[in-house]
Amino acid sequence: MSNSKVNKVKHIDLTKIKDPSFLKDLSYKELDVLAEDIRAEILRATSTYGGHLSSNLGVVELTIALNRSFDFSKDKLIFDVGHQCYTHKILTGRSLEKLRTTEGVSGFQKRSESIYDCYEAGHSSTSISAANGFAIARDLKHESYDIVAFIGDSSIVSGLAFEGLNNLAHSNHKVIIVLNDNGMSISKPVGALASKFAKISTNAGYNRFKSSMKKTFDRGKVRRAIYHFFSNIKNWFKRHLVSPTIFTDLGFAYIGPVDGHNIKAIEKAIKRAKNTEKSVVIHACTLKGKGYKYSENDETGYWHGVSPFVLETGEPKNKHEGEISWSHLYSDLCAEMLEKHENALLITPATIKGAGLDSLPEKFKDRIIDVGIAEEHAATLASSLSLSGYHPIISIYSTFLQRAYDEVSHDLARMNCNATFLVDRSGLIGADGETHQGIYDEAYLSSIPGIVVTIASNADEANALFSESFNNHGPFFIRLPRILLKKPDEIKDINLPFGKWVKLNESSSKDLAIISCGPIVRELLPLLKENGIDATLYNAVYLNPIDKEALDSLLAYRRIVVYDPYSTQGSLVNLTEAYLLEKEFKGSLKAYFIPNEFVKQGTIKQQLERYELLPEQIINKLK
Amino acid sequence: MSNSKVNKVKHIDLTKIKDPSFLKDLSYKELDVLAEDIRAEILRATSTYGGHLSSNLGVVELTIALNRSFDFSKDKLIFDVGHQCYTHKILTGRSLEKLRTTEGVSGFQKRSESIYDCYEAGHSSTSISAANGFAIARDLKHESYDIVAFIGDSSIVSGLAFEGLNNLAHSNHKVIIVLNDNGMSISKPVGALASKFAKISTNAGYNRFKSSMKKTFDRGKVRRAIYHFFSNIKNWFKRHLVSPTIFTDLGFAYIGPVDGHNIKAIEKAIKRAKNTEKSVVIHACTLKGKGYKYSENDETGYWHGVSPFVLETGEPKNKHEGEISWSHLYSDLCAEMLEKHENALLITPATIKGAGLDSLPEKFKDRIIDVGIAEEHAATLASSLSLSGYHPIISIYSTFLQRAYDEVSHDLARMNCNATFLVDRSGLIGADGETHQGIYDEAYLSSIPGIVVTIASNADEANALFSESFNNHGPFFIRLPRILLKKPDEIKDINLPFGKWVKLNESSSKDLAIISCGPIVRELLPLLKENGIDATLYNAVYLNPIDKEALDSLLAYRRIVVYDPYSTQGSLVNLTEAYLLEKEFKGSLKAYFIPNEFVKQGTIKQQLERYELLPEQIINKLK
Repeated sequence: MSNSKVNKVKHIDLTKIKDPSFLKDLSYKELDVLAEDIRAEILRATSTYGGHLSSNLGVVELTIALNRSFDFSKDKLIFDVGHQCYTHKILTGRSLEKLRTTEGVSGFQKRSESIYDCYEAGHSSTSISAANGFAIARDLKHESYDIVAFIGDSSIVSGLAFEGLNNLAHSNHKVIIVLNDNGMSISKPVGALASKFAKISTNAGYNRFKSSMKKTFDRGKVRRAIYHFFSNIKNWFKRHLVSPTIFTDLGFAYIGPVDGHNIKAIEKAIKRAKNTEKSVVIHACTLKGKGYKYSENDETGYWHGVSPFVLETGEPKNKHEGEISWSHLYSDLCAEMLEKHENALLITPATIKGAGLDSLPEKFKDRIIDVGIAEEHAATLASSLSLSGYHPIISIYSTFLQRAYDEVSHDLARMNCNATFLVDRSGLIGADGETHQGIYDEAYLSSIPGIVVTIASNADEANALFSESFNNHGPFFIRLPRILLKKPDEIKDINLPFGKWVKLNESSSKDLAIISCGPIVRELLPLLKENGIDATLYNAVYLNPIDKEALDSLLAYRRIVVYDPYSTQGSLVNLTEAYLLEKEFKGSLKAYFIPNEFVKQGTIKQQLERYELLPEQIINKLK
Repeated sequence: MSNSKVNKVKHIDLTKIKDPSFLKDLSYKELDVLAEDIRAEILRATSTYGGHLSSNLGVVELTIALNRSFDFSKDKLIFDVGHQCYTHKILTGRSLEKLRTTEGVSGFQKRSESIYDCYEAGHSSTSISAANGFAIARDLKHESYDIVAFIGDSSIVSGLAFEGLNNLAHSNHKVIIVLNDNGMSISKPVGALASKFAKISTNAGYNRFKSSMKKTFDRGKVRRAIYHFFSNIKNWFKRHLVSPTIFTDLGFAYIGPVDGHNIKAIEKAIKRAKNTEKSVVIHACTLKGKGYKYSENDETGYWHGVSPFVLETGEPKNKHEGEISWSHLYSDLCAEMLEKHENALLITPATIKGAGLDSLPEKFKDRIIDVGIAEEHAATLASSLSLSGYHPIISIYSTFLQRAYDEVSHDLARMNCNATFLVDRSGLIGADGETHQGIYDEAYLSSIPGIVVTIASNADEANALFSESFNNHGPFFIRLPRILLKKPDEIKDINLPFGKWVKLNESSSKDLAIISCGPIVRELLPLLKENGIDATLYNAVYLNPIDKEALDSLLAYRRIVVYDPYSTQGSLVNLTEAYLLEKEFKGSLKAYFIPNEFVKQGTIKQQLERYELLPEQIINKLK
């Protein structure tokens, strides 16, 4: 950030921005200063509140150029995934103050926040289909405006994006696709298309050219002229010599690659794109994490999504000494399983880092398959590996597992394929809001025949469940809540028979029985004692199928409470209710669970409290 | 079928075939005779039992060539979708007698039937991912055999197939992909890739050449030599002039196009494919429905899947006079909705014909969007159309809707987009077996916040529900069972308030209340009377959310029965149970529903009977 150079140029007060109209009055020098200021603000906000860092630092100039070239109060801008929209928020008058908290803006596009947001996402690869829909609507209404789908190189290789491309290219409805190619989205993108992109952007010495010319750009008129001279030569060669891309192959116009940090160059590309008859792809190359030394040099995806950190050192603000995430706990267990079972394989859809699996030893390299953002492929791939005698461990976020619903049912469950799913970020997940909640998987998995769904309450159970999942039970799901647990000194081999719940306490009377699950059940036990509540307490490690023997033992109870703060009612709660009714249970049955709705951002504690699901709140209800 | 020409050549008795080893001993002339005999057998079986006709007639020579070139007791053959495997069944010693009935073979690949079936499907586009998994397993085990994914041009454009291609091309695990390009799978394929294929196969006069040379082939040595001479010239031009396909773009080797009815040519292509280092695509052009005049000339997809028909005339055997399918009823209603609502649009994923929508008037052409086999794209496309003020009607089979689970939740429900889903082939579906049952959607849709799920019991209700779905309720699902109903003389406008069940009978005592739904409820009413059962009967047109007021009125009843023979327990049954428990209902509650399992083939009646869900069986339980 060459602050010395830009001091004389006018700074824009970011807090005073109402809408992007001011951008038109700025010179390119002033725009570069603005870009630096926006980067500083993104760093301030993410270091304070956490959020998506690298992707946002990478698209500052692209977003400025887009907002100068279009009027997104009528033109449509659809950010794929949407987590890279911070610059857009700033330019459209939204403060990043209290980002992702109950009082602040969302970390994603949000229609309720601004007329400059026409669409929302959180999951990947929806932007092209969405843009296609907007374009059909525009043309049916004989209206006139531009539609821009802004998509990264990792998202565009996902199946849905391809379906969108294939349909869009075939239609007469024009969309401008901006491909933000940073060669690394969440982590290194995989697949043939990614290689192809890499080839294009390195072709004809493009990258070397780019880096050597980049600095030249700022240093006076003559050098700038030289830059443009070479740039034009380069573009001529590129256009005529680089082999047609998959985009031209499908019938798109193609512009690029263009330097995604050069506002003027981007604007020129956009101008050309506006003039094409057919849908067009602008291929922009950017540096992910640009402007912050730690994120610029990030190879693993560490700076993709961050918790609050110290700006100067890059160190996390909250150290959580002696604690570990469930993701990391299972990652450690994963190493043990790969060691123990020669037929174990790990499959992840682009979430190696997010799921804490980047620390797995190098020796397992051949048995770790990162398929990129391709959840469906991950599940179907797992099915034939399983039929071949391998035992795939699929590490996947609960919310992204939704994409593979059909494949889990049709390809894995139907053929009774053995596989362990580590369903990461299950339950309430906090600041990422509506698009990322992991509260639905218990219910949607329960609609699939023959699957097993479980949750551990501590590390020993985690280990036991993971081990049990290798004993030929078909698809076996283990839910990982998004909280921390005390780092275990050792993990004990415990006896946890398949399908059985764990009785943590037995009441002396047969008045009250509580069925709960997950780590919260460990908080409940002492709270019950403290409050003098004499209750039988079951830890439902098996959420589906349920433990009918345990329920049989409760039929004479006066009151049964089912408390599942990690899910909606569609599995443990409903299955327990159905069974008790079948058995003509005559007592009262109360159930506490997350209502089936889209959960707004906040901390997990705030979200639990909102639904009166904190253990203390439950205790109060019991009293 | 030039029987006069082939009479002198040896016929193989198809019923005597044990395995494909005999194929190696046959001359190409004998193989052509065998192909004709297999076609006759496919026609006999499908005309008797129904089944997939066109796709099977199209791949006879390809399947013969594959079984001559490989040994699929160790090599792997994965048919995408799997409905085109009849020739493979015959060649591997399986009779088509009683095809798709409880006593006969499945209409799809089935591992339990034969060692020659290594994988199973029913849904589209899984073959490449599955092949990739088999290839990884083979190479990890250092084993040596070939893996063939056999996929049609309509299936390969679906997102999952692309994810498979993108990952496979990038890996070092070799797979041979046979692209069966007939320019028409279920119906005309759509999308840019389909156009591309069409361009390739028509390029350099390929098609003209093919059809003029085809006849020549059979007529003596000299002409055959001429054919090959031209063929070689043609192939040289093709290889050097046709622009690289998406496959070469992704890094595959590419062989073709090859005439998919010329066994020798296919074998030559396979030989080349076996010798490539990397994964390879054999692009084979076939004529769908080949060898039967009606299916050869089929433009609409009528002959894709057929009910029993008269071979000579092509007429269906069972006419069902005065009856209509629910699909056709809703198709007629669809026309009315498109007429009435200018903002209504119809989206289908390649099931225009199957869902009876091919009769929609030409004037709605601009408002009918067939996206091909791209269920995910269909749902996301619908979301932005809805946000633009359009009301999409998405006609989709229940079993294929599974593919769009994430998009229905994340893109439609979360943004509360108005849309009507006509969920065709809901409930038990009969002969297509495990892969096509429509019994899960009630449950999996219920895991999504804010959606509405309904089912009509007669045409008037169908009309009322369809109309109501336009009144801003977000995603609104109407389930269409796969049975026939009496063709209504007229459709009456009835009052069916949103969210309310219909009381069909009120008991004089408060002893028994029955909650049922769908057409079966109309059979139940007279049966109750005949059997002297005095029961209050509710028709639960709204499956989710349930009618709580109706349930409140039943709280004093001694017995409540919920009877949903169209679904597993995950929605109407469980929601009703949960509500009654919440209200501390003290009577007995019995529920009858389809168990959550993969349902074997048979007639729908057989399947209902197996689960003791026929109305008569329920009446017996009530007595």
